[in-house]
Amino acid sequence: MDRVPVLKIGDILLVSIQVDMDDNTALALQDTLTERIVETSAHGVIIDITALDIVDSFIGRMLSTIASVSRVLDAETVVVGMRPAVAITLVELGLSLTGVRTALNVERAMELLELSRPARASSLSVVGDGLDVFDDDSPVA
Amino acid sequence: MDRVPVLKIGDILLVSIQVDMDDNTALALQDTLTERIVETSAHGVIIDITALDIVDSFIGRMLSTIASVSRVLDAETVVVGMRPAVAITLVELGLSLTGVRTALNVERAMELLELSRPARASSLSVVGDGLDVFDDDSPVA
Repeated sequence: MDRVPVLKIGDILLVSIQVDMDDNTALALQDTLTERIVETSAHGVIIDITALDIVDSFIGRMLSTIASVSRVLDAETVVVGMRPAVAITLVELGLSLTGVRTALNVERAMELLELSRPARASSLSVVGDGLDVFDDDSPVA
Repeated sequence: MDRVPVLKIGDILLVSIQVDMDDNTALALQDTLTERIVETSAHGVIIDITALDIVDSFIGRMLSTIASVSRVLDAETVVVGMRPAVAITLVELGLSLTGVRTALNVERAMELLELSRPARASSLSVVGDGLDVFDDDSPVA
């Protein structure tokens, strides 16, 4: 049962890590996640680590790798549910989780991802109705 | 690491079951879930069982109990991610998952819960303006 489900909510993928991650599970998760990002055109990935009592350098590297691969595929990664003790240990170990954003809970992560969504309407330019063409006499050059 | 995280998304609680459920884990999950429903005034509970290869009578009973307790607390339970083989086994074993609704994935479950949300505006009655009282002379009987 070493499979980590990837749940889709809107254009966000949600992964809750609860099992002990070994090499194979981590690789399988990366593969599944990468496929799902492409398949669903996901905009963001939320990884919940509430169940993890320990985040060692292996898990830390896995999270960084997932974040890097996702970024290449135009999806942002947010890690949520980090326990205070885990945060302290990470700092003490000097693990900085490069490229990984964090949020307190899933809702905050969704807000973060919502804010980072490119505004689709911003590229639409409003064309004037032509009546005021001669009112604007500012020189171009 | 036998703790199943309960994630909150809006007024819905999301639980992804990935670890082997024994008596203690199941009881702990029921307790946590009950507390969280009350704490967050949740309207629905979504239980993801994508990671489960087998749903035996123990898991089935646990799902039914969670659904019953949630209903008493005014929250509806939807089980998602059931594998085809699991569905076949459930029917063959005669386990009917009493009181448990199912959906194909989290998004469908959210739609289901959205539909079952009591419409708050429906109790507002529109009062007529009284001008067309005599225009409508269709007999009632």
